[in-house]
Amino acid sequence: MSAVRNILFIMCDQLRWDYLSCTGHPHLHTPNIDALANKGVRFSRAYVQSPVCGASRMSFYTGRYVQSHGATWNAVPLKVGELTLGDYLRPLGLRTALVGKTHMRADVEGMERLGIDPNSIIGVRVSECGFDPYDRDDGLHAAGPDGRYDPQIPRYNTYLNDKGYTGDNPWHDWANAAQGEGNALASGWAMRHAHKPARVKEEDSETPYMTRRAMDFMAEADEAPWCLHLSYIKPHWPYIAPAPYNNMYGPSHVSPVVRSEAERADPHPVFREFMQQRASETFSRDEVRDEVIPVYMGLIKQIDDQLGLLFRFMDERGLLGKTLIVFTSDHGDYLGDHWMGEKDLFHEPSVKVPLIVCDPSRQADGARGTVCDELVETIDLLPTFLEALGSDPASQSHRLEGRSLVPFLHARAPAAWRSHAISEYDYSVLPVAARLGVEPRDARLFMVADKRWKYVHAVGFRPMLYDLEADPSEFHDLGADPAYEADRQRLAQELARWGLRLSQRTAWSDAQVRAMRGRSQRQGVLIGVWDESDVPNELWSEYTGKDG
Amino acid sequence: MSAVRNILFIMCDQLRWDYLSCTGHPHLHTPNIDALANKGVRFSRAYVQSPVCGASRMSFYTGRYVQSHGATWNAVPLKVGELTLGDYLRPLGLRTALVGKTHMRADVEGMERLGIDPNSIIGVRVSECGFDPYDRDDGLHAAGPDGRYDPQIPRYNTYLNDKGYTGDNPWHDWANAAQGEGNALASGWAMRHAHKPARVKEEDSETPYMTRRAMDFMAEADEAPWCLHLSYIKPHWPYIAPAPYNNMYGPSHVSPVVRSEAERADPHPVFREFMQQRASETFSRDEVRDEVIPVYMGLIKQIDDQLGLLFRFMDERGLLGKTLIVFTSDHGDYLGDHWMGEKDLFHEPSVKVPLIVCDPSRQADGARGTVCDELVETIDLLPTFLEALGSDPASQSHRLEGRSLVPFLHARAPAAWRSHAISEYDYSVLPVAARLGVEPRDARLFMVADKRWKYVHAVGFRPMLYDLEADPSEFHDLGADPAYEADRQRLAQELARWGLRLSQRTAWSDAQVRAMRGRSQRQGVLIGVWDESDVPNELWSEYTGKDG
Repeated sequence: MSAVRNILFIMCDQLRWDYLSCTGHPHLHTPNIDALANKGVRFSRAYVQSPVCGASRMSFYTGRYVQSHGATWNAVPLKVGELTLGDYLRPLGLRTALVGKTHMRADVEGMERLGIDPNSIIGVRVSECGFDPYDRDDGLHAAGPDGRYDPQIPRYNTYLNDKGYTGDNPWHDWANAAQGEGNALASGWAMRHAHKPARVKEEDSETPYMTRRAMDFMAEADEAPWCLHLSYIKPHWPYIAPAPYNNMYGPSHVSPVVRSEAERADPHPVFREFMQQRASETFSRDEVRDEVIPVYMGLIKQIDDQLGLLFRFMDERGLLGKTLIVFTSDHGDYLGDHWMGEKDLFHEPSVKVPLIVCDPSRQADGARGTVCDELVETIDLLPTFLEALGSDPASQSHRLEGRSLVPFLHARAPAAWRSHAISEYDYSVLPVAARLGVEPRDARLFMVADKRWKYVHAVGFRPMLYDLEADPSEFHDLGADPAYEADRQRLAQELARWGLRLSQRTAWSDAQVRAMRGRSQRQGVLIGVWDESDVPNELWSEYTGKDG
Repeated sequence: MSAVRNILFIMCDQLRWDYLSCTGHPHLHTPNIDALANKGVRFSRAYVQSPVCGASRMSFYTGRYVQSHGATWNAVPLKVGELTLGDYLRPLGLRTALVGKTHMRADVEGMERLGIDPNSIIGVRVSECGFDPYDRDDGLHAAGPDGRYDPQIPRYNTYLNDKGYTGDNPWHDWANAAQGEGNALASGWAMRHAHKPARVKEEDSETPYMTRRAMDFMAEADEAPWCLHLSYIKPHWPYIAPAPYNNMYGPSHVSPVVRSEAERADPHPVFREFMQQRASETFSRDEVRDEVIPVYMGLIKQIDDQLGLLFRFMDERGLLGKTLIVFTSDHGDYLGDHWMGEKDLFHEPSVKVPLIVCDPSRQADGARGTVCDELVETIDLLPTFLEALGSDPASQSHRLEGRSLVPFLHARAPAAWRSHAISEYDYSVLPVAARLGVEPRDARLFMVADKRWKYVHAVGFRPMLYDLEADPSEFHDLGADPAYEADRQRLAQELARWGLRLSQRTAWSDAQVRAMRGRSQRQGVLIGVWDESDVPNELWSEYTGKDG
């Protein structure tokens, strides 16, 4: 029997797969995350369903591809009818709560159309991506001439004010700004300040605050089973860290940039436009990388330290033996690789994420410390949770599009595994789409990857193609090379097959389909009958023997 | 300005496209429907989105492909979040009501999950496919050893009882049964009785009843604008008609069967199984066709007569000048063609429907009596309604997948029209799927048709292909013929393109996407900024000038 009673689902934001010591970073030591990998399974080919916060997360939380749930980018509302993590776990008796970020936008119009009061329990859950809000904080409390980016004022701001950090946006003024010259603030939004220490004390910065909130939740939950989504905001920008993490690494610890002049020679039109975005041009400068990356590393180091505290806390309370722990990220960060900043496209630094799953059950002993190199999609987590909790994910196969990873956790080979991973990106909101003259409905990219090839379908343009075996750095786009026509066709066919999948028959399970076969005949619907004797007598029971 | 204030949306059930005199039937005279065609536009290539009642209708009512709305077959619930006709027309001030059939199954589980009371106004609409129920009657009040097929008892049964037709299911015992020998009933479910007159008086049979209910509605509605869906149950089986319609046609009026031995020689495995269904084997017998088809014709004749009464009623009340009238069907009926009974597959008798649209506006004068041979999908009706009412269907392009037919109604060429029509069929509920050993998720067929070719993708099997130009009877399946590989590939690519369409970003309009471009920067999200001077000063307004 599975020992799993709780689920701790830890997500970082914008954490590259290769910025941990267990995934090979030479200077960034993350012993607590490494220890988790040693006790669990690390997945070396985990791809997000979309390399952008909102869309990726909605796939994590719904267990469905972006094309299926429709929340294709940040701020696109998740439709009111989509089921989320909480809808699946609550019936199993788990309190499903959130500390941190989801980037979910509520479908306010849909709720109003269906008469759902946003302040009812159901309304709050629908608005909060299915979680019971414990401390939601999307972590971007920006403001400008057109107002606030996120209308929600986080509890964290109140916390800071209570601690004596003044102003109406201490998130910016203390946690994400340094002391400038004179009385001026050095805003974390200007990356030249990245190395400066944030004005907040380390213990009051976002990562420790959220870690303590997670501990608060666990202490309050006591013996009742739970799923806690601990969703850190970091190492996402603004790239600024409190002391000592601002200063723990320097330019000598920065990994060499992964880029090639070949990439700029005759790039795919979409790639060209992304390379010309401000973040890409900025991160293509060495001074920027040398300033920012050490701080990015410091923010990760801080997370590792905090996880050390959290795991110790859990150990002291006997929680480690009954909690499945996941560590992952919503997407990566180019950090200047491929002449890119940010994420958005499908090179490995952007679309691949770290993924560690630690199952405390005895059945998992044979797999501890192993690395699984199968193609994994982040929609696999929800079915993994269900199976770990003793529920059958197959009963939800009409909704969930991923597959349980439990076989890998228990060192059993699954019957068959996927041969291709899919990721999607909707760039319709970006100025890139306007510059390319692409309509809002057509600004879409699809990645199909197997263990060797990565194929990108760009609606309205030629495809891109990378051979990860011959060209692991992904410098050479073979999308227009006649020699690879057969490979492109094969991968295009895989994408076509995927596009025709059944994704919306979600109100009827496969078991219901099977049970329906032949049912209407026994309810008197007698199709194609010529003579009464064509069907058994009992089917006429309601039609005959009556007074004519 | 459009004269359209009301919409009368008439649908027959299982009416073949070619069983009207205006579409060429040599013996079945339908002068009232013909007159509508003479005043409006007849569409000669109108394809349903699925050749089965429920799925087809859900596409009519949602304006979306079956793969998008997910109600892939009869009895599959329409998801609670899907918008329907009423959601689009009510905001325009139209009362949107139903007389007759929708075949919609409510998403009871989804409603419960979202706390929607099925008895609230919203709950009733969600349960009734978005219509205000005036007289819903799905028209199949069958019963057998496992109970009733449709739990709802129709008002029609009460009506019959009140008229003195006794018993607890007068729908069957009087309207769909004849007098047998002695005291026995001759049930309409046994087709050998088809020519016998139904026991009900003609005026009390289903078609006149529903026509009168439509008149009741119009009289009650008075001056307030409305959309009435008059959704006849006939000529759907049980094939039985009241006198004199039972006896109006005979075997000499039956069109020659369209079938070829070539079709049975080496058929596609899916086609083979469908040919072996009971209804197919029954309809492959000439005695069955000679018995049933004259009655099928009689039922259509009765509809035409009733529409004559209805149009006269409307004329007398001044409604014809302000009502857009649509006449169509949810799918066809093989009636023995291609060795098939029923519908389900994509031969023309099954997937093509009659479609007549009559716009009373002056702008439509130039198109009256014309025939449009462009590829039309039945999802085009909802955008047509919107445009006819003066609303812009483009504002709903994030939800509606069809295109307005108004350009054709107004004798204007549209900018560009679709080159391919799509239809789908989910046979997972049929015993065919079990016999073929196909999993519930894979029992799916997709048709892609242009004006010459019809390509059918059958998941797990080879495709089918018909050349409608060289082989208008669709006798020769070229799906395995090496000579047509290029055609198959081209059509498969069209299907792949369709499969990747954006169908679920329904909570955000294209206009919202455009408006979102660059918005976050003006809310203080400053991505990729190195120095404060990289962006305009005003973007720092909330971050600077503060006391550090």
